[in-house]
Amino acid sequence: MTERVVLAYSGGLDTSVAIGWIAEETGADVIAVAVDVGQGGEDLDVIRKRAIACGAVEAEVADAKDEFAEEYCLPAIRANALYMDRYPLVSALSRPAIVKHLVAAARKHGADTVAHGCTGKGNDQVRFEAGISSLAPELRCIAPVRDYAMTRDKAIAFCEANSLPIATTKKSPYSIDQNVFGRAVETGFLEDIWNAPIEDVYEYTRNPATPREPDEVVISFHKGVPVAVDGQEVTVLEAIQLLNVRAGAQGIGRIDMVEDRLVGIKSREIYEAPGAIALITAHQELENVTVERELARYKRQVEQRWGELVYDGLWFSPLKRALDGFITEANEHVTGDIRMVMHGGRAVVNGRKSTESLYDFNLATYDTGDTFDQSLSKGFIEIFGMSSKIAAQRHSRAGHDLGLGQ
Amino acid sequence: MTERVVLAYSGGLDTSVAIGWIAEETGADVIAVAVDVGQGGEDLDVIRKRAIACGAVEAEVADAKDEFAEEYCLPAIRANALYMDRYPLVSALSRPAIVKHLVAAARKHGADTVAHGCTGKGNDQVRFEAGISSLAPELRCIAPVRDYAMTRDKAIAFCEANSLPIATTKKSPYSIDQNVFGRAVETGFLEDIWNAPIEDVYEYTRNPATPREPDEVVISFHKGVPVAVDGQEVTVLEAIQLLNVRAGAQGIGRIDMVEDRLVGIKSREIYEAPGAIALITAHQELENVTVERELARYKRQVEQRWGELVYDGLWFSPLKRALDGFITEANEHVTGDIRMVMHGGRAVVNGRKSTESLYDFNLATYDTGDTFDQSLSKGFIEIFGMSSKIAAQRHSRAGHDLGLGQ
Amino acid sequence: MTERVVLAYSGGLDTSVAIGWIAEETGADVIAVAVDVGQGGEDLDVIRKRAIACGAVEAEVADAKDEFAEEYCLPAIRANALYMDRYPLVSALSRPAIVKHLVAAARKHGADTVAHGCTGKGNDQVRFEAGISSLAPELRCIAPVRDYAMTRDKAIAFCEANSLPIATTKKSPYSIDQNVFGRAVETGFLEDIWNAPIEDVYEYTRNPATPREPDEVVISFHKGVPVAVDGQEVTVLEAIQLLNVRAGAQGIGRIDMVEDRLVGIKSREIYEAPGAIALITAHQELENVTVERELARYKRQVEQRWGELVYDGLWFSPLKRALDGFITEANEHVTGDIRMVMHGGRAVVNGRKSTESLYDFNLATYDTGDTFDQSLSKGFIEIFGMSSKIAAQRHSRAGHDLGLGQ
Amino acid sequence: MTERVVLAYSGGLDTSVAIGWIAEETGADVIAVAVDVGQGGEDLDVIRKRAIACGAVEAEVADAKDEFAEEYCLPAIRANALYMDRYPLVSALSRPAIVKHLVAAARKHGADTVAHGCTGKGNDQVRFEAGISSLAPELRCIAPVRDYAMTRDKAIAFCEANSLPIATTKKSPYSIDQNVFGRAVETGFLEDIWNAPIEDVYEYTRNPATPREPDEVVISFHKGVPVAVDGQEVTVLEAIQLLNVRAGAQGIGRIDMVEDRLVGIKSREIYEAPGAIALITAHQELENVTVERELARYKRQVEQRWGELVYDGLWFSPLKRALDGFITEANEHVTGDIRMVMHGGRAVVNGRKSTESLYDFNLATYDTGDTFDQSLSKGFIEIFGMSSKIAAQRHSRAGHDLGLGQ
Repeated sequence: MTERVVLAYSGGLDTSVAIGWIAEETGADVIAVAVDVGQGGEDLDVIRKRAIACGAVEAEVADAKDEFAEEYCLPAIRANALYMDRYPLVSALSRPAIVKHLVAAARKHGADTVAHGCTGKGNDQVRFEAGISSLAPELRCIAPVRDYAMTRDKAIAFCEANSLPIATTKKSPYSIDQNVFGRAVETGFLEDIWNAPIEDVYEYTRNPATPREPDEVVISFHKGVPVAVDGQEVTVLEAIQLLNVRAGAQGIGRIDMVEDRLVGIKSREIYEAPGAIALITAHQELENVTVERELARYKRQVEQRWGELVYDGLWFSPLKRALDGFITEANEHVTGDIRMVMHGGRAVVNGRKSTESLYDFNLATYDTGDTFDQSLSKGFIEIFGMSSKIAAQRHSRAGHDLGLGQ
Repeated sequence: MTERVVLAYSGGLDTSVAIGWIAEETGADVIAVAVDVGQGGEDLDVIRKRAIACGAVEAEVADAKDEFAEEYCLPAIRANALYMDRYPLVSALSRPAIVKHLVAAARKHGADTVAHGCTGKGNDQVRFEAGISSLAPELRCIAPVRDYAMTRDKAIAFCEANSLPIATTKKSPYSIDQNVFGRAVETGFLEDIWNAPIEDVYEYTRNPATPREPDEVVISFHKGVPVAVDGQEVTVLEAIQLLNVRAGAQGIGRIDMVEDRLVGIKSREIYEAPGAIALITAHQELENVTVERELARYKRQVEQRWGELVYDGLWFSPLKRALDGFITEANEHVTGDIRMVMHGGRAVVNGRKSTESLYDFNLATYDTGDTFDQSLSKGFIEIFGMSSKIAAQRHSRAGHDLGLGQ
Repeated sequence: MTERVVLAYSGGLDTSVAIGWIAEETGADVIAVAVDVGQGGEDLDVIRKRAIACGAVEAEVADAKDEFAEEYCLPAIRANALYMDRYPLVSALSRPAIVKHLVAAARKHGADTVAHGCTGKGNDQVRFEAGISSLAPELRCIAPVRDYAMTRDKAIAFCEANSLPIATTKKSPYSIDQNVFGRAVETGFLEDIWNAPIEDVYEYTRNPATPREPDEVVISFHKGVPVAVDGQEVTVLEAIQLLNVRAGAQGIGRIDMVEDRLVGIKSREIYEAPGAIALITAHQELENVTVERELARYKRQVEQRWGELVYDGLWFSPLKRALDGFITEANEHVTGDIRMVMHGGRAVVNGRKSTESLYDFNLATYDTGDTFDQSLSKGFIEIFGMSSKIAAQRHSRAGHDLGLGQ
Repeated sequence: MTERVVLAYSGGLDTSVAIGWIAEETGADVIAVAVDVGQGGEDLDVIRKRAIACGAVEAEVADAKDEFAEEYCLPAIRANALYMDRYPLVSALSRPAIVKHLVAAARKHGADTVAHGCTGKGNDQVRFEAGISSLAPELRCIAPVRDYAMTRDKAIAFCEANSLPIATTKKSPYSIDQNVFGRAVETGFLEDIWNAPIEDVYEYTRNPATPREPDEVVISFHKGVPVAVDGQEVTVLEAIQLLNVRAGAQGIGRIDMVEDRLVGIKSREIYEAPGAIALITAHQELENVTVERELARYKRQVEQRWGELVYDGLWFSPLKRALDGFITEANEHVTGDIRMVMHGGRAVVNGRKSTESLYDFNLATYDTGDTFDQSLSKGFIEIFGMSSKIAAQRHSRAGHDLGLGQ
């Protein structure tokens, strides 16, 4: 039987050409698999037909938008996941979602190889291949751009030589990856990190500097899951989509950063993730109200490692699963409402309400009703500071003066 | 000899009354010490004279603004210190600065007790007392409000009964602590955490929602120290002051959060810290450009612990000193220029330039000049993902299906 | 109705006297509760009767040995919990087990106060009281020794004055706490930390220096739970008891350390925990074989924090629960057999066998059958070291010479 | 000019053959560099002459024993560095020491390539190459065994064909790496992880099971540096050598473990490191006495990361340098004497003495002289447990029962 290769197919020039290119390089039949994670663009059926027209022996398309929101974006929201304190892992989250469909297709069609369209210097190749080897260690991975020298120019030539039904228009200056959780843009002039981005780069967000009316929103969570927006029940997907529109209209979620890639280099990235940033901002503050201090302090470290793991393509790793065990437990009480004003590029929480609140008005107030017993503090401070004090006594003993001058 | 108490003196009603109150309670002579950490307000000499008029046997005043900026705010900037990812530790930084002056005064004047005006349910009592016991373990601490039941009403009565030269106007609804690094506000109606702050609460910042022109600024750092603004050399104090004005004018640095106090309760706090937020934002991005990935990842954890320690009043603790050893080393190459647009409440970096940059255009670019050898990636991915892959093989062996359905 | 106090009762002099002492101080009825966590000694029924004879209005006794082993010791084994890398948390584990019974008794008998026999300078008072306030925040805690100045001498006098049925023999020089997981000893001459312990201090272990035959044992685990010893099925309690005997006979599990108490002081402690140390040693090595590297590395940090939390009396805290979520997940594959030689104070693993092993002979071997593709390493090393290399290039660029001399 | 390759030369068969092999493969002149890190064996001059006899154009030998002890072993002692809580990094420490000499030789002789004898599946190839690229990013690395298929059999054939002056005796069953800090052994029959090691495997240590007299030793440290043994001043090298003899005679420092290699596989390793284990054991306990609690707790995490970094070959990385900043500061007060009994494979501390001690007899004692104010504890416990208690009140409020049954 002819060998079979499952290809992660987008419908664009590169992966359309890759169908024939892989067939030529390997002699294998190519099965195209397109997964909709909310990237927008063409109808899935159009994409499916194009794959066949380009030579695929089979083509599968899957609407994975809800699955992507529930199983990938939601854990990121509950982890307040921001790589390098900024980037909500947009592309990093979509890769494992797509990988799962690729592996399922490989098993269904008896393929022993999976192919993807990534280059050899980015993070996505790692995310695809580490993901695949963690779900299906028996599968081999190939990347025509990286492994078979399928450059853009050669792809266009191949396309024309084989009369493939794709427009080979002049390349857009932007290299873009997008899904419902956000959008990543790279482009030549931004590789000079002193250059500022121009308005033309953005699509999910409007200019935050344009004067407009603020938009106030109330987001309700149940155990860390966004369940309603302004009192209207929503799925996770709907919450993201709705906030993409409303937060995007206020210019929220633009990110311009130099980031550390897994392959060891620094790169400059522009992201837009209005819904993601609005949801994480709200979730963080609801945690401030409902999560106990020591748990909250430790969770910050867990969140950071979780974000690094996912960024590094280790979604299906044992450590990721164990961190999820922690995060799920930590979200047990993250239930309540957060009111935010969205305006001028900022989502600002100004109200919180929760049946699970640990904020106790009577302990916090300085007015009538104060129940905090201040006489306890003396003993607390003395013992809390004891180990530092003893260390200080050592200093005195030794004649150190700690720079006090005397 | 009569015993002597050094009192942290602000010039306001509470600490002015405390002079006499402490004298009555303890029979000791009271020495008032006022430290200027940029809180603004009255002239130091006026304050000094009032202390004497209120019964202090001695009164000392110190302009510690530069010292506060250099020795307390600067380490916080180099640590990107944001407690709970938000609060730049404004009050927490000023306490150790004041403590050092109190201890020096106690030694100079032979006092065996230090007094402060804090209540018994906040963080500041801990910061004062843990600080004092770490610098001078032999000193005793007292707090008239907490230990001698000196309530506001009783203080006013005392003031009137003793004809102290202080206006006993009706209490402002706001409880405020401020210094050059920022301003903290608590007030009754905000103790309902569903209530939004009103514009009246703010003083260091203008309303970010008001339409106005953006302000572009270039901040230069040398080894993590801000050394110039728009090419003009500045001291750390000047950098903070200048950015307080410019970032404040754009509404930058407002914070509204529920926070975890050291004494175990949650409280709602409003802060303004325009200069601090602008400087930390710039410093963070310059680190993104100049600090190696693994160091940067680890530093995030160190920063978090540093912020918790300082928030918790452990400025003079052995762990704080050791973390400073790490942070100083990590800032060794944080040298260069950051360009930011300040507008509408946001300070957004859009350009970076550094002789110490680790961003390598030739490795990062996808255009001509690319020097990254993509053939290396295959081996990297395979070995990087090896331990997860082997774990996955165990799963396959065991017949687990990882939820792939088959 | 007369108020009721539940007292943690041991049957010894101090808590026997406390029954009447508390009654006198508070006017409340005292209910004695004794919990058997494997401390050995008298029959529970004897203890129950003595409580009544000493004036308790009710006395409850509970055999909690299995519960203690399953719910408290087992999580510690799965966490490889060693406070300060040494101490298996013996007493710290028993306190929450006892607390649960005290709280249940308080609710059953309508008590509003819980009393315990601890002093005011140790960890156990915190473990009792923090535990009680986390399970039953409405209960008040008292400690006669600390709060009502019930010194040893006064207790003896009280005992004699009231003809209580307890022998008031001269105090043993040792202060001991013990349960099935181990034994803690403090004594006057060891408060000089230069003094070595004498053989007389030990009870669970024989002198490791005495020549004797080694004992080889195979311990089997299922998901981190010890389920068999030398092929014989055991409960967790039996595993601990059996290894207490066999490892104890070889002098295993003696610990002599200066430790950091929660109340800020350092103390010198002698522990014996033969079963605990043998089980943790075996469990650790089985993890080495069955847990993926990154998970294993992270788990070490989690273990340390888990041990600190439990030592600090925060067994019932939200963070502890979330760390348990992590640890449970991490133990999912810790299944297999560990062979150990026990001799001369050491438990040394020398064989491991597991169906869940991640050790792959074919990848590890340097002999025939090697399946590791060494050609992958070049790319791995190059990219793995890339970020350090780029940082080094900056150094070269800047003329630094890294101390190479040239 | 002919290109030049610097080869890490051991004097053994593999690297002797590599001289000619590299010359043939690359056409370059080979410069042999042998570094003595205490591995014992032949005289350096003999080794130098053999290199020349085998075709090297230059041969350099360096006695780096003191340098290795001071600059590599000492930081490991101060970090209590034990990879996976067991392995004192023996080989991992020697690689950067050797690398520094290789790079210096390459610069001196104008070489553009460095060669080493490692295979392609171990850690050492990474340690060599990551080290070299961090010190001299312009140098290229090659490994004949890995890159030019120089197998053992082919090496023997080459040796005979070229009449090289090396004995090509039948290969020892053991693959060994050793230096003054310890010894690592791998061998075929131990690749079955159920097999126990045999006595024949060990060389630095005698059988711990053999009855013999205990050996008591006092080790003195100054700021974490071992400076005297039994009162006799020593260099770091002498301390290690002396304790290798004395602790080795007692069978101390044998390690048998399954470990996680950087290349993603698990391997089974046997180590002996008597001096290292004795010194680290003593150093740890002196830290228990002299380091403040919070610093000690945090240092444990730093130690673990430090060990992982060094194991992973990142000795010269920026993160390693910053962690060293922390560790140096933490060792500032680690001064004093530790008395240990060494016997039966165990080094057991039984006495500590320090002018920098934080152990305070008067605070710790339960006897006369106790200065700890127990009345402080009540307030401490109440506030220390406050956040957990408030979380518990939420539970009560919600009708949860925490499994208490009622």
